Order: sequence, then C-alpha cells, then structure tokens
Amino acid sequence: MPESPIRRLAPLAEVAKSRGIKVYHLNIGQPDIETPQVGLDALKCINRKVLEYSPSDGFRSLREKLVGYYDQYQIKLTADDIIITSGGSEAVLFAFMSCLNPGDEIIVPEPAYANYMAFAISAGAKIRPITSTIEEGFALPSIERFEELINERTRGILICNPNNPTGYLYTRKEMNRIRDLVKKYDLFLFSDEVYREFIYTGSPYISACHLEGIEQNVVLIDSVSKRYSECGIRIGALITKNKTLRNAVMKFCQARLSPPLLGQIVAEASLDCPRSYAIRTYEEYIERRNCLIDELNKLHGVYSPIPMGAFYTVARLPIDDSDRFCEWCLNEFEYEGETVMLAPASGFYSESGLGRNEVRIAYVLEKHELKRAIKILGKALEAYPHRVENKQHK
Amino acid sequence: MPESPIRRLAPLAEVAKSRGIKVYHLNIGQPDIETPQVGLDALKCINRKVLEYSPSDGFRSLREKLVGYYDQYQIKLTADDIIITSGGSEAVLFAFMSCLNPGDEIIVPEPAYANYMAFAISAGAKIRPITSTIEEGFALPSIERFEELINERTRGILICNPNNPTGYLYTRKEMNRIRDLVKKYDLFLFSDEVYREFIYTGSPYISACHLEGIEQNVVLIDSVSKRYSECGIRIGALITKNKTLRNAVMKFCQARLSPPLLGQIVAEASLDCPRSYAIRTYEEYIERRNCLIDELNKLHGVYSPIPMGAFYTVARLPIDDSDRFCEWCLNEFEYEGETVMLAPASGFYSESGLGRNEVRIAYVLEKHELKRAIKILGKALEAYPHRVENKQHK
Repeated sequence: MPESPIRRLAPLAEVAKSRGIKVYHLNIGQPDIETPQVGLDALKCINRKVLEYSPSDGFRSLREKLVGYYDQYQIKLTADDIIITSGGSEAVLFAFMSCLNPGDEIIVPEPAYANYMAFAISAGAKIRPITSTIEEGFALPSIERFEELINERTRGILICNPNNPTGYLYTRKEMNRIRDLVKKYDLFLFSDEVYREFIYTGSPYISACHLEGIEQNVVLIDSVSKRYSECGIRIGALITKNKTLRNAVMKFCQARLSPPLLGQIVAEASLDCPRSYAIRTYEEYIERRNCLIDELNKLHGVYSPIPMGAFYTVARLPIDDSDRFCEWCLNEFEYEGETVMLAPASGFYSESGLGRNEVRIAYVLEKHELKRAIKILGKALEAYPHRVENKQHK
Repeated sequence: MPESPIRRLAPLAEVAKSRGIKVYHLNIGQPDIETPQVGLDALKCINRKVLEYSPSDGFRSLREKLVGYYDQYQIKLTADDIIITSGGSEAVLFAFMSCLNPGDEIIVPEPAYANYMAFAISAGAKIRPITSTIEEGFALPSIERFEELINERTRGILICNPNNPTGYLYTRKEMNRIRDLVKKYDLFLFSDEVYREFIYTGSPYISACHLEGIEQNVVLIDSVSKRYSECGIRIGALITKNKTLRNAVMKFCQARLSPPLLGQIVAEASLDCPRSYAIRTYEEYIERRNCLIDELNKLHGVYSPIPMGAFYTVARLPIDDSDRFCEWCLNEFEYEGETVMLAPASGFYSESGLGRNEVRIAYVLEKHELKRAIKILGKALEAYPHRVENKQHK
C-alpha cells in the first residue's frame, strides 16, 4: 500500500509551523472558497431528534435533485442511476471492488490522482499506466499505446476529466477514441469528473455519460467536495446505467450501512445555491490560474503548461528530485519566516523515476497569497543545493 | 459478496408501506432513543465558512476527549492510539485490509454481525466460523474448537462483546481463554465493543484492552452510533497500541482523505452529554429487554435466551425457514393493517442451513410498540402456512 503523496508530508508541515514558519499550502485540493451559505444554513435548521441511518444508497430526495443538476450538463439520469457514497473516494473504491477481481487490470493515463492506486490495491487489481508528458501538455496518449496494454485481464480504463493533477481537459476527439476502445474491448470506463465546474478554455466538457453506445460500460465518479468547497462532508456519488453493476455496488453500500447523514443534508441544500455562487467561484479560479501560471513561468528554469480545468497544474522545476525538494522546503528552507508545501509529482506516477522534476501545485489560495507563495518557491529554487537546470525546451 | 441480511428486505418493507401497512422495524439496530441535545446543539453552533477536510486520523481534540471516555472503563489510551473512522464499519474494513492478506483466515464465533463477512471478502480473507448455539445461550464455544481451526493461514479472532446479534456478554473466564489463545498463536484479536454501554446483568465488562500480555495484538473497533443514537453521523474508531499496524491503517485512511467533519463535531460534543442521558437510556433498554423477552417467551413455540447486553436477541421460532417467514410477513401478512420486519438469522451464520428457525430482534422501539409488535409476531406465527413445531426444549 503506497503512502499518499499528498498527505505524507503533513507531519513535516506541522513541525515547520511549530517552529513559527508560515506554510503556504499548495499541496492539497482543499479550496479556501467559502461553502455556499445555503449549505451552511441547512445545518442550523436540522430539527431531527435522532441522527439516524440514511438509506444505503443515500436519500432519494438528494438523488432526485442531482438528476436536475446533471441535466444542466446534458447528462440524462434517473435517481436510480445514482448511488450516494462517502466522498468520491468511496465511489472509486466500490467501483473497483465491484468491477475488478484480484489480478484484473485497468489502464490509467498518468500522471494520475495517487489514491486511485491505493483503491486498486485494495481491490487486488493492477493499474497499467500510460504516461502522458508535460512536453505534450499531458494530452491523451495515442490509442495504439492503450491497445498495446490490453490483454485478457484488462477490465477497464480510468480517466479523470478535467484532470487532477494536470488540469488537462480531454477533447471530443480524445473522448471518442476512448469510447471506441471501450466498445471494441467491452471495458468499463471509470470517469472521475468532479471538476466539471472548473473548465476555463471555452472548450466543451465531454462527459463519459455523453458517449453513445457505451452506456452500460460507464461508471461516473462524482463528489460535491470541490464544487461547493465541501470536502469535509464526504458526499460523493457512483453513477451508472448498468443495473447489474449497481446491484453489486449496493452490496458494498449495505455492508457499510449508509453514507453520512449530515453531509447529505448539506449537499442537498447546496444544490439550491444561487447561480452567482458558481460564477463567482469560477471567476476567482480563472484569475488565480492566470496569476499562478504567469508567475510560475516567469521563474527561471520553471515550466507549467496552461491547465484547461480543475485547480491544479503540474509544473517542471529545475531540481534533482521533487520528493527531496518538497521535504527540504519544509525541513530546511524559509524565506522571511515563510515556506511552501507542494505535492511531489512522483506520487502521481506508478513507475519510479517519473515525475522527479515535477510537482503538483493547487491554486486554492487567494491571488495575493498565491503570488507570494510563488515568490517564495522562486527563492527556494535559488537556495536549493541540488538544483539541476532542465534541458527541455519550454 | 453476500447481501446484507438486515438491509436486503428493505424494498419489501417499502412495498408493504405503500400498501398502507404499518411495519414495526425489529430488524435494524437503529435506536429510536433521542440523540443527546448537546450533540444536536453543536450543529447549530458551527460557524465555519468552509466545510473542509479533517485530518485523516480525525481531529486531535476528539481523540483526546475519547481518551477520557475510555478511561472511565479502565481502558488506558493515548490520543495516538485512536484513529477516527467513518463508522465502526470502516474500522472493521481497514483492520481487515491492514492485517489480512488474501487467503488469510480469521476465526469468528457465530452467529455474528453479517457485515463482518462482507468486509472479510473485501480483504480477500476467509472467515472460519465456530457455531455457538441458542441451547447454550450463545456462550463462547470451547477453546478446543478454536484450536481445531487454527492453521498457518490463521491471522486472528474476531469477537463482538456485548454481542450483536445474540446479546451475549463474554465472561472474564471466556475472555482469558481468548487471551491465552491469541498469545499462544500470536493472533490479532479484533474486538467490536460498540455496545459496552448496554450491559444489563451486573456482570463485569471485560474489554479486549483489559487483557494483559496481548496489547500489541488487540484491535478495538468502536463507534458512537449506538451509545449516542448517532448511527447517521458515521463516526467510529479503530484503536490499537500496535504502532506498525496503525501506520498500515493510516495508509487506507489517507487514501480516503478524511472521516466525516460534521459527524466528528457532533461526536465530540456528545461526549459532554450529562450522565443522566446514559442512565435514562440504560433504564429504557432494561425495561424494553424485559418486556421483549417476556412477551416472546409467552408465545407458543418461541424461545429467546435473556440477552445480557446490546439491544438484540436471537429467538427461535416455530417456522420452516426464517428468510421465507420474514419475507412472508412483509409480502403476505398483516394483522389489523400492521406487520413486523425481522432479520432472518441465516444471514448471521456462514454455513447454509444454520439459523433457519431463528431471527434477530432488535429492541429499539418503545415498550408499547414492542409489545404490540410481538403480539403481531404471534399472530403471524399462527397464520404462517409453514409453521414447524420445534422439538428442542426451552
């Protein structure tokens, strides 16, 4: 079981803070955007006398309301297609547990959200990575490279779109290629789309649920964590039109009895938040993104593509080893009493050695904080004793 | 993956209700006792602007307060020994995932909480059951029967004390026998003790944590669900003095990011509930227990031992097949527009055929409702077309 690359450094940050150092958290996808007021208010209005179990698949009222939410994105569902989970994490775990037998394989374009790996291990399954590269802006690798990996144990493809950690958004052409592959080999398509609110380029959002002819193969992973800044309430969803699969997932749901009651109440209320909330949030992220990428690319030896969605970027730094560098920033560096915490990209690749000069940066801080954090990153890169100039072009 | 015997019948109950029939829920351990006011009030006082992730092992403030709670029971812990989980369910899952490899075995006295089986399957492990019997009041089977099952794949023993579903409370002598076995074969002892508040006989509560010499082997499973009537908030704990094991568990905790934030706030506040809450709850259950067992044993052909703890009993009914009977109660029977929902005991045994004339009854309704429910059960038993008189003595 690999350690979470995002949470692994947390104790070092605590030590740094105990030494009085301010740590800018660029490492974790915890937005600082306020939770919708209507969600917070719902907590004040709970007049239940017993905080009891909810149904194993979540409250029907929440699932029915979600149908309307997805409809805005031309994702046509019924409440029965939706199973509420304890965060998107549990949705991934239950999807893997239900679809994969020990020894089965799934193909995942990398860099990828590190915890997928942990959930695959929990299911006894194996992730077969296909590396996308910063030089190509982390575009989907060619279909031939997928086909090379497909064998009799291959059960599915996992994508995250818009992508964590790269911010890449799959094009219609790329999504159609994935669809053809899924159809040809009758694979599951696990599609984590928790960042659909955060798409910045005007390019269309193509959901796995939009792809025709593979309706029974698609498993959509979702969560309210990012879109409403409600990471703590642990409300996600596993969505599929495949009834047999839903029945299998429900056995896991029943075993853990129910998803969080209070989180469901907040999530359901949050679906009523005014359109202005989404717009304000969106505009804030656009500005942060522009600020972050501008500042990063101004630093000598640093390169980041422009992320099209989500609120992360993977940047290349002039360093020997991102694990070592990120630890060093917390253990040994400070600039005017401040330092930065980054996620080493090595944790987002299966193959050891990849991502060694890359880090994931989340733009979940206000602009002036972000600007300051990138300034400190620049100072750190200047002071770092194991700086290595990158040969690659920008 | 087996279906949950407790939740499997839920759709039938919905159909019965849609036909206007009142269903008495004796099937699920969802107490109707009110949640402590101090816990409910905590929700009204949340003044966070962002409902963000909590630490993967839960808030330190909650864990520190739990140290004081356990101290009341002479369970000596530090906050570091405690990992907060998404209900006791997740604690069981993570314990199994961390301690067991595919093919490993754990020994479980049965009847046992059905979802253990589901979590064992999730971990690829195998449950080796030892049957306890209603004739012996569900006492711990002899140590010889445990030893017969121990082989090179045996990794642990799982107990639930006080027991769900039987209400049995292990004696000091029995606990010492388990300790000796655990020590002799260096096994894990998984001990689910979520019902420690509900012990009715004056017999002492012997926690696995009280057993000397096996401190590194014990994994305590706990939850606030039952003691504070907070099943919905999904707050449990995995407790162990074994640091290596805690580190392994933490990797699963980090993968799912964090336990529910709002539930932790409620649980922490509930630890301050006045002593009168526990006393009132306890007295209520004692009365319900007496009422239930009296009424049950008055029914011709029905037998229930007197449960020493928890809020369940396993009763023997004069029926051919408890699955069939429980379904029939929901599908085909009604008495004055009412019926009962019970949990077939077959789901609490691994071996098919066992528990066929037994059901689990939870006493989580008020006395007058309980009394009425047992009256209806009596009517159902009279009307049931597949009644079979039991040969066994009372």
